[in-house]
Amino acid sequence: MLKNIKRILIANRGEIAVRAVRSIRELGGESIAVYSTGDKNSIHKDLADIAICIGDAPANKSYLNIPSILSAIEITGADAVYPGYGFLAENPNFAGICEKSNITFIGPSSETLSLVGDKAKAREAAKRANVPIIPGSPPVETLEEALSIAKKIGYPVLLKAAAGGGGRGMRVVHNEQELTRLLPVAQREAEANFGDSTVYIEKLIQSPKHIEIQILADKYGNVIYIGDRECSIQRRHQKVLEESPSPFITDEVRKKMGEAAVRFAKEVGFVGAGTVEFIVDKDMNFYFIEMNGRIQVEHPVSEITTGIDIVSWQLKIADGQELNIKQEDIKQKYHAIEFRINAEDPETFQPNIGKIEKLYLPGGFGVRVDTHIYQGYEIPPYYDSLIGKIIVYGKTRQEAINRGKRALKEFIIEGIKTTRDFHLKILEDERFLDGSYTTTLVDEKYLKG
Amino acid sequence: MLKNIKRILIANRGEIAVRAVRSIRELGGESIAVYSTGDKNSIHKDLADIAICIGDAPANKSYLNIPSILSAIEITGADAVYPGYGFLAENPNFAGICEKSNITFIGPSSETLSLVGDKAKAREAAKRANVPIIPGSPPVETLEEALSIAKKIGYPVLLKAAAGGGGRGMRVVHNEQELTRLLPVAQREAEANFGDSTVYIEKLIQSPKHIEIQILADKYGNVIYIGDRECSIQRRHQKVLEESPSPFITDEVRKKMGEAAVRFAKEVGFVGAGTVEFIVDKDMNFYFIEMNGRIQVEHPVSEITTGIDIVSWQLKIADGQELNIKQEDIKQKYHAIEFRINAEDPETFQPNIGKIEKLYLPGGFGVRVDTHIYQGYEIPPYYDSLIGKIIVYGKTRQEAINRGKRALKEFIIEGIKTTRDFHLKILEDERFLDGSYTTTLVDEKYLKG
Repeated sequence: MLKNIKRILIANRGEIAVRAVRSIRELGGESIAVYSTGDKNSIHKDLADIAICIGDAPANKSYLNIPSILSAIEITGADAVYPGYGFLAENPNFAGICEKSNITFIGPSSETLSLVGDKAKAREAAKRANVPIIPGSPPVETLEEALSIAKKIGYPVLLKAAAGGGGRGMRVVHNEQELTRLLPVAQREAEANFGDSTVYIEKLIQSPKHIEIQILADKYGNVIYIGDRECSIQRRHQKVLEESPSPFITDEVRKKMGEAAVRFAKEVGFVGAGTVEFIVDKDMNFYFIEMNGRIQVEHPVSEITTGIDIVSWQLKIADGQELNIKQEDIKQKYHAIEFRINAEDPETFQPNIGKIEKLYLPGGFGVRVDTHIYQGYEIPPYYDSLIGKIIVYGKTRQEAINRGKRALKEFIIEGIKTTRDFHLKILEDERFLDGSYTTTLVDEKYLKG
Repeated sequence: MLKNIKRILIANRGEIAVRAVRSIRELGGESIAVYSTGDKNSIHKDLADIAICIGDAPANKSYLNIPSILSAIEITGADAVYPGYGFLAENPNFAGICEKSNITFIGPSSETLSLVGDKAKAREAAKRANVPIIPGSPPVETLEEALSIAKKIGYPVLLKAAAGGGGRGMRVVHNEQELTRLLPVAQREAEANFGDSTVYIEKLIQSPKHIEIQILADKYGNVIYIGDRECSIQRRHQKVLEESPSPFITDEVRKKMGEAAVRFAKEVGFVGAGTVEFIVDKDMNFYFIEMNGRIQVEHPVSEITTGIDIVSWQLKIADGQELNIKQEDIKQKYHAIEFRINAEDPETFQPNIGKIEKLYLPGGFGVRVDTHIYQGYEIPPYYDSLIGKIIVYGKTRQEAINRGKRALKEFIIEGIKTTRDFHLKILEDERFLDGSYTTTLVDEKYLKG
């Protein structure tokens, strides 16, 4: 039960706001929902103890509007704020204002959020913590230098513009001949595009897997990892389906990744629930990408496999309680799969909003549903298309897959299109079934146009 | 997956029919729903692969009508029948017809059903299996005999008419003086009411607990018990809320009860899923009451605490598969509580049918819902008032109770009254909270009129 924080304002909406109400209630706290005028029919405001409107529908006028959120905290006398994911969840400025105003921000410190939000600094921290990062070079100037570095890193490599970003100014290089030919091209392009001809070399991880580690850290230096999640089913870098444990890595690699994640969290002084994301190559080498200092959409698969209630622990940690779970006691007892249900056309992935005319949610043995939707609910057009999550589990991966099929098949939703049928396709995909799938599977095989 | 049976007709309705569809689908079988004209809007027929109408609403014209069920089996080419609970589930005649017609009845043999359905024979079987039964006497004739037997059994005792039943012709006797006075009275009453003055003496178990053991037994002699369920929250002998494990008995007593239940199941040649019911006195002495040779409404609490899918095992056992779970591997890893949601007034328990105008089912971490209802569904007046089950679990009993409160509070149902609020009262009751509650709690404290 909560001892120090009592009235918690949830600065979010949708399923994660419902999720927060649940844990707050179970721990004896009071939940305060905020909502925009576009969310006046959202159930999160009915489920919470108190609800307050914070502005108009566009997020910058409500859920992203710090003065509005602060006013709501002031009016309701909240002593803590639960940020969820998205919106202000990883905004160091907001966290800092909370700190200065003596409001408990349920997450890491503003300082840690700043650090993990800066890719270069995070990469430096990973180095210090002896966490593998993608091998890369300082800026290269001559061809000799480039050839020597590339040989050391191993082909294929990426030539990247130092001043570039978002994939621009990148060249894939497979061997010495290509490097000889492409280095001057890359340098000229970098100069032309970014006004700076500096390039550097990074190892190309081809068709990798995305596997992440859930972390919990209290205020007293206790840090644990709560298993891994494989999130390689992605559509244009957006996760679609997640499972735990990964069917690909060995327990030994899983343990190494977990320990690396803990080292990183300790290095950055992390407190709360966070996720250390890695890409993993075909030989099970793993490389740090980034740390997310917030709850993730896919947290339920970790909760189910280990029996640890992560959101409740976020609250208890912010409340000043000590993490009393020992690393050696954490076991992944089940295999769990989460299906993100988006209000999207399952063929084109275009948003498909409207009114839910009929609804029957899956249930029974091994099925968990996290959602804010109900029959008669009209999905507002302003927000993310995620309308719910169906999570299934079983003693084995095959059992979880079979259960996933039946849960998706019994899920009745009329009035809008959803990604339900897409998940059913994935559950039949041979590369999903054999566990060899990578982050390129969906884009290469299932995306039209 | 199923190997021998493939097309399974579900001779039931409501939540248990939905439950059966789920396991059949997960195991790769085909599900065939039957429904009465009163159930034409029931979701179990939409979820199944095939649905067939078997007659009019009163159960004796449809769900209890053996020729109708047999016709449906014939028409659909079903090779097995899943009986659920109630209706034909424990009808030895129906099971026998299936046996003769080469249709797999998913349950014990007709012979076993006959045996466990006969209280006197079941009591004899318990004696043979060295399972404690309530101490009782052969018929007594003289006062001397009666005094001697009562002394041996220990007061208080019950004087019962041998030809009586259903509580009629019973007298509670606390001491020798009372016995001396009441024996002739009881004999005269027995003669007057049943035409037979024979009476016998049985030990009175005052304010007992009802605790039962879940059994699984395959065709090859493997029998295991899957934890206990405490079902002492009863209204007029109808279970209302069940939990597992019982907060009252010690692990040692739990183990003894489990082993006794296995001995009984072996003695009667039991195959399938069954429940051995006991009453337990304040000193944790337990006494066999009866065995139910079918799935029970409260089976989910056992599934959740142990991770064993009981309905799937019913199917696999009927399919001829071997039970590959070892007794020593079964652990009750969670504490689970089931709330039966009945369409009843929570004060008077009068049925309260109607149309469900709004529905939001609880969900999230530690919550399972088994139901056939949906928004817009009109509850037919012909059947049992059970419209769903909310099952919650946690690492501790307190966690499960806290989760139960929040799940019940977030459960929105409009248009009909349900027992939801009654469960919230039980979750605040001090005798529920300290685990000392017995089968008399609800009737003595909460029943009006």
